[in-house]
Amino acid sequence: MTSTYFNGMEAVPFDPDSDGLAFRHYNPSEIVMGKTMAEHLRFAVCYWHNFVWEGNDPFGGQTFERPWFPADTMDLARAKADAAFEMFRILGVPFYCFHDHDVRPEGDSLTESRDRLNEIADYFEQKMENGPKLLWGTANMFSNRRYMAGASTNPDPDVFAYCASTVRTCMDVTHRLGGENYVLWGGREGYETLLNTDLSRELEQMGRFLSMVVDYKHKIGFTGEILIEPKPQEPTKHQYDYDVATVYGFLKRFGLENEVKVNIEQGHAILAGHSFEHEIAMATAFGILGSIDMNRNDYQSGWDTDQFPNNVPEVALAYYEILKGGGLGKGGTNFDAKLRRQSLDAEDLIASHVGAMDVCARGLKAAAAMLEDGGLEAARDARYAGWATADAQAMLADGATLDGIADRAETAELDPQPVSGQQEKLENWVNRFV
Amino acid sequence: MTSTYFNGMEAVPFDPDSDGLAFRHYNPSEIVMGKTMAEHLRFAVCYWHNFVWEGNDPFGGQTFERPWFPADTMDLARAKADAAFEMFRILGVPFYCFHDHDVRPEGDSLTESRDRLNEIADYFEQKMENGPKLLWGTANMFSNRRYMAGASTNPDPDVFAYCASTVRTCMDVTHRLGGENYVLWGGREGYETLLNTDLSRELEQMGRFLSMVVDYKHKIGFTGEILIEPKPQEPTKHQYDYDVATVYGFLKRFGLENEVKVNIEQGHAILAGHSFEHEIAMATAFGILGSIDMNRNDYQSGWDTDQFPNNVPEVALAYYEILKGGGLGKGGTNFDAKLRRQSLDAEDLIASHVGAMDVCARGLKAAAAMLEDGGLEAARDARYAGWATADAQAMLADGATLDGIADRAETAELDPQPVSGQQEKLENWVNRFV
Amino acid sequence: MTSTYFNGMEAVPFDPDSDGLAFRHYNPSEIVMGKTMAEHLRFAVCYWHNFVWEGNDPFGGQTFERPWFPADTMDLARAKADAAFEMFRILGVPFYCFHDHDVRPEGDSLTESRDRLNEIADYFEQKMENGPKLLWGTANMFSNRRYMAGASTNPDPDVFAYCASTVRTCMDVTHRLGGENYVLWGGREGYETLLNTDLSRELEQMGRFLSMVVDYKHKIGFTGEILIEPKPQEPTKHQYDYDVATVYGFLKRFGLENEVKVNIEQGHAILAGHSFEHEIAMATAFGILGSIDMNRNDYQSGWDTDQFPNNVPEVALAYYEILKGGGLGKGGTNFDAKLRRQSLDAEDLIASHVGAMDVCARGLKAAAAMLEDGGLEAARDARYAGWATADAQAMLADGATLDGIADRAETAELDPQPVSGQQEKLENWVNRFV
Amino acid sequence: MTSTYFNGMEAVPFDPDSDGLAFRHYNPSEIVMGKTMAEHLRFAVCYWHNFVWEGNDPFGGQTFERPWFPADTMDLARAKADAAFEMFRILGVPFYCFHDHDVRPEGDSLTESRDRLNEIADYFEQKMENGPKLLWGTANMFSNRRYMAGASTNPDPDVFAYCASTVRTCMDVTHRLGGENYVLWGGREGYETLLNTDLSRELEQMGRFLSMVVDYKHKIGFTGEILIEPKPQEPTKHQYDYDVATVYGFLKRFGLENEVKVNIEQGHAILAGHSFEHEIAMATAFGILGSIDMNRNDYQSGWDTDQFPNNVPEVALAYYEILKGGGLGKGGTNFDAKLRRQSLDAEDLIASHVGAMDVCARGLKAAAAMLEDGGLEAARDARYAGWATADAQAMLADGATLDGIADRAETAELDPQPVSGQQEKLENWVNRFV
Repeated sequence: MTSTYFNGMEAVPFDPDSDGLAFRHYNPSEIVMGKTMAEHLRFAVCYWHNFVWEGNDPFGGQTFERPWFPADTMDLARAKADAAFEMFRILGVPFYCFHDHDVRPEGDSLTESRDRLNEIADYFEQKMENGPKLLWGTANMFSNRRYMAGASTNPDPDVFAYCASTVRTCMDVTHRLGGENYVLWGGREGYETLLNTDLSRELEQMGRFLSMVVDYKHKIGFTGEILIEPKPQEPTKHQYDYDVATVYGFLKRFGLENEVKVNIEQGHAILAGHSFEHEIAMATAFGILGSIDMNRNDYQSGWDTDQFPNNVPEVALAYYEILKGGGLGKGGTNFDAKLRRQSLDAEDLIASHVGAMDVCARGLKAAAAMLEDGGLEAARDARYAGWATADAQAMLADGATLDGIADRAETAELDPQPVSGQQEKLENWVNRFV
Repeated sequence: MTSTYFNGMEAVPFDPDSDGLAFRHYNPSEIVMGKTMAEHLRFAVCYWHNFVWEGNDPFGGQTFERPWFPADTMDLARAKADAAFEMFRILGVPFYCFHDHDVRPEGDSLTESRDRLNEIADYFEQKMENGPKLLWGTANMFSNRRYMAGASTNPDPDVFAYCASTVRTCMDVTHRLGGENYVLWGGREGYETLLNTDLSRELEQMGRFLSMVVDYKHKIGFTGEILIEPKPQEPTKHQYDYDVATVYGFLKRFGLENEVKVNIEQGHAILAGHSFEHEIAMATAFGILGSIDMNRNDYQSGWDTDQFPNNVPEVALAYYEILKGGGLGKGGTNFDAKLRRQSLDAEDLIASHVGAMDVCARGLKAAAAMLEDGGLEAARDARYAGWATADAQAMLADGATLDGIADRAETAELDPQPVSGQQEKLENWVNRFV
Repeated sequence: MTSTYFNGMEAVPFDPDSDGLAFRHYNPSEIVMGKTMAEHLRFAVCYWHNFVWEGNDPFGGQTFERPWFPADTMDLARAKADAAFEMFRILGVPFYCFHDHDVRPEGDSLTESRDRLNEIADYFEQKMENGPKLLWGTANMFSNRRYMAGASTNPDPDVFAYCASTVRTCMDVTHRLGGENYVLWGGREGYETLLNTDLSRELEQMGRFLSMVVDYKHKIGFTGEILIEPKPQEPTKHQYDYDVATVYGFLKRFGLENEVKVNIEQGHAILAGHSFEHEIAMATAFGILGSIDMNRNDYQSGWDTDQFPNNVPEVALAYYEILKGGGLGKGGTNFDAKLRRQSLDAEDLIASHVGAMDVCARGLKAAAAMLEDGGLEAARDARYAGWATADAQAMLADGATLDGIADRAETAELDPQPVSGQQEKLENWVNRFV
Repeated sequence: MTSTYFNGMEAVPFDPDSDGLAFRHYNPSEIVMGKTMAEHLRFAVCYWHNFVWEGNDPFGGQTFERPWFPADTMDLARAKADAAFEMFRILGVPFYCFHDHDVRPEGDSLTESRDRLNEIADYFEQKMENGPKLLWGTANMFSNRRYMAGASTNPDPDVFAYCASTVRTCMDVTHRLGGENYVLWGGREGYETLLNTDLSRELEQMGRFLSMVVDYKHKIGFTGEILIEPKPQEPTKHQYDYDVATVYGFLKRFGLENEVKVNIEQGHAILAGHSFEHEIAMATAFGILGSIDMNRNDYQSGWDTDQFPNNVPEVALAYYEILKGGGLGKGGTNFDAKLRRQSLDAEDLIASHVGAMDVCARGLKAAAAMLEDGGLEAARDARYAGWATADAQAMLADGATLDGIADRAETAELDPQPVSGQQEKLENWVNRFV
């Protein structure tokens, strides 16, 4: 079925001179550093913020009125899918993402929930024939009260088992729909208070669970990536997947660093005290960059604001790190962003994404121009040029000892003199491109 | 020489009923859970805040007037040592800590700096005959302008080499003085801007350097622990040793997780978005708890305020995690705390430590009472009791698969029901002891 | 009707030696500084967190199961009231607080909503015969979608008018029930983005509205206080009643500083970057201290966590400022605190309040002991003693001029010498009492 | 004398196509909305960060090597002035700013300090003949230890008197040099701990002092503005001039709201939890916008980072509010920004300002284009259009009562329906211009 929710709106055109709704910067087929913008950016629209969230916040109830609400029947779930795929078409995005919980009403039992997901996946398969692909699927293991104390880290082993079933079902569906990745966000894998928490035990449970997820991926022949999405807190006081460095340590501990990557969200980076580009650069350094959730968090609001990106200079720095790291691979740019709850209209859903896609396109183009210009990399190389000498390299090689280096330093009476770090000049340089 | 700075003040007595300067709670020989309080707490006074810092802050200059300032000659360095050991005596602390930079003026050359440290170490050896032991030594590789862009992570390999000499000297002195640990705080191991930073390269440099430090420890037969002190930022925008979880990942990456532990500071935990007890619990879970820097950070000031601890309930929770983790081992409770810059008097130096030691003593006693009561652990055990069954354990054992568990969950139509987490009751329970 | 929700639980006794549920510190009739603890503390239980909130958070749905949920009929509203008054009895609190929205389902029209509130007020009147009094009433003008862009500051004047009716109804009911105060919390009086906001206009609307509220109070002869509750943000990006100092400026601007006071919440103080005692001290300095909402905010979570207070040293400092300021007057100690969403049980509702009341009692007693001891005030007086001289006083008096004072300073070649601020000693001193 | 510090560098040209050091956007004579860019922006270079700060931070010492350091003689003070005015010439800025403490070494007595300031002012007078004007002068009453407990709020009345002399001298010099404003930043007007602070008394002292400053301004015929610079904390735990709203309340309390305006700093706004444009909009609403200190604070560092502005979209929103508010008047755009301490070179001083001036120029032009386009204002007007009716206006007029409005609302059974706030569309709209 075609949804009438968007009144048959045409696909949004690329038209830099338009006065109306149009892409001014995102031209999917435009070549940037040898690939189309579409191939670089791999945009995805998320299901949850756009089609599920009703506009509630902690101090207020529903503000949005969508014809498929409350979506508690399979018919309404299909109506929701119709609207979703209609929006994907209007935006021309190549990908979308979902949780099981987003796309079908929960059943009265575990197996009914499973069966309903399979049923809606049948419907998606038809819809996807001419439409977008699945960037990633995931399981919502945080909203239902059964998960209030965690999913795989729950004190109740039945919840752990319940999660095994849920993840299996979601992985199966993701695999069937050709998903390019499977994501785990540990929304309640963490604690509210250490007073009732056995940290060590819960980390073991989580590591064990993830290992089984990886094994299952191989068993079913799923060739997508398994991704963890770091977040430091909210809803819990502390989440175990705090940030990229924490996740890396966790993966190393369980020997999974070559099996699992990260899905980095700008807003989560901010909440952890990092810039988005920092988290991307860290993931690149560790070899675990998977995908990104593009949004923005208000730097001065301490909760997850999930706003649409709108600051081009910041976005450019993120794509700069991505391009330097070799691009997004199987990952993509998923808009984990939601309308403000006062943005009531169907066209707000469209306009917000169009603006965000344009911001990303500008950021990508600026990042590519910076890389092609090469000024920043040349300055960086010059800064570390001293390390190119044989003596310097020897200090990093096997066989070097503190003793040996110290002797040499003392004999030479080294007195290294600092040189300017030129931060402001480099910032100015970036400003030529954004 | 005996310093006259404290006017020959008597050692501070334990006297709960005193109206004057006395320990009301810290009774070194009192037995708590089978050990003396002195053995549990292993208090140390730090050199830098007490004898080096002049009261400056970013908006103001020197406020303190000490007779050994500016301490730019070896004679003044000895006068400073006289005052320091006098203060250790008055407080009756069993340990102290220092950086090279704290105890001797820097020389005109690398070797002169080295020689001066050795010379002051001779002086310390005499002073330590009846006095406190060295909890740890460390090298200040962040104050001098040569370190402005990092120590082992510096873009200039000569700085790396300079650091090798400096650390060797400090480790040698620490070893000679019987130090129980050697600490590395990477004050400028991080970056100001990603624009001029090669993150991956710098992490490699830092890993290589630490590996050589560990090798050197073994070479010289130093049996103390090597400790890294996590801090997320300040002075740099981002420090590589962000928090305990990040350090753990770093150690795992370089295969050093059995060689290096952490020195956890309350204020640094706060700046990283964690509670102190969280960081201790994480280190315990990873098996890398080394020592603690006890202080407090104002939760609402975003810089390192390094105040003396004064909140007993918080301190009790920290010692609770320490006691649960088996105690401080070779580590101790070092007061990395400084007077407010308006606290000008010699007696402020004494009173601040007496108050802090009493706060720790109350915290320790409360923690021990909680453990001995056992209520908290009983509640925790009950919460996870479900995991004791064979079926539950099997899910965590080798051979378990997602598939197998999922099948079982679906067959059983599991429908786990949440139970109260009782956070408020547990908080009330804690309040009976603090 | 008597609710069976609490299974006929007895009133919680004062019994310091109890092993079970009992007050260990709150003894209502105990005399502290000439008044009973009940008179000092004036405890109130709030309706919203205890009887309305279902355990939802931004990432999860209902966790609590109460027999009166979803409370969408007048019968369920009465069942809810039965449980509420049962809980008030068990706790022995002298006061309670509510929003219109908490106590009756919203009607299909403005007047039906009004009439339902009046109807439930009739029911309350019966219940209050032997029970607690009303500390304050208030109107919920933030949950319904009509308020999504503000209440009195709404861009739609019909919302302003709607609010006038709603507040009149709530004030009438508060007056009828003998409420001691009427509170306005401007949950959405603020903005999401300056881009669509006319700040100046909205402040004018808000000032005008408040002036009419004050006039109406006098018209109906309500002798309680009108209170504004400051909060910096959440739900909105910026709330106009940011903190005590901001509210004071607002009141001065509209000439209402003698008509309106503040209801200060610990958690809101924290979110604004202040300590609770700071906000109380500021309100005292401005003469606008009205009442307090006692809770605690996690210092490291950037949203309104509304936890029960549990840190006695902090609570003691708050009551110290309150006692110094002359006490709470018509105000009280309202627990604007909610269970963690995992605390599912009826007894969690009771235990959380018992613990919180004990924490406040301990805080009050410590504060009183500090004041009676007088040490802190003596130190403070000594610090400012220089201002007692006639010359010093003259500088603050009318007629003093910069010129005259400058001449005198230069003639005397003043060279003021700083003296120790003794912060650590004062902190130690406080620790003798908490 | 002409300083050789900048090696006779030419004035930086406006040359959008330059590959070297040039203004690409700041063209002083270009007309924007009827005025030149120079007239709109009124750039000023500050003395303190550029010519006084030695590169210290809390964990490290001097990094900069300037020939005039340590500037502890009048000859070195003149050499510093030579370099400063040379830099003003190279940048072509129309204004500069200074503290007394920046431009002359402190004397051995109050009057010697005064006389030295007068002497250096003579030197400035010569230098200013062809050069920049003074945007504002101010007194540093926070660096010397005598101010450690505050300036006008000091517990020692002699400090109050000392400040009277200091401010008189600085106002006299500012007046003599034709300064357009006189600024007071209360760096230590606040507290470290409430335990030793008499908040109420200190606020009275501060109000009295400011009143005398205003009187003195009139006495000497100074026609510039008196400006207070808000900052929430740092160096103190709490500063009384917390933010614009707090300062407004303070001015109202002492009847000074028509005599004193604010100098708003981006970094201080951030530290107070506000956006820069928020503070500007608030000041405009209160009629107290004076001048701006342009810089940027790292949103994730909790201290005053004072970086050069580099984010054009953010700067554009600030100038948008300024232009809407009628422009900067006697105020200007002062760069209260400092090099990173690794930026050692003379040319870093120049390049940083050139980049910042370009960022401001781009921001101004974007802001002007937005205003001239009118789209944002049209959307805002439409949002509040309902208030244009007579009925709506009557609700805000004298004579309106809560009662009357409530009656009308109930009779009409008002049921206001929300309309979209369109935040994302407006953000997209802004992105067309930045």
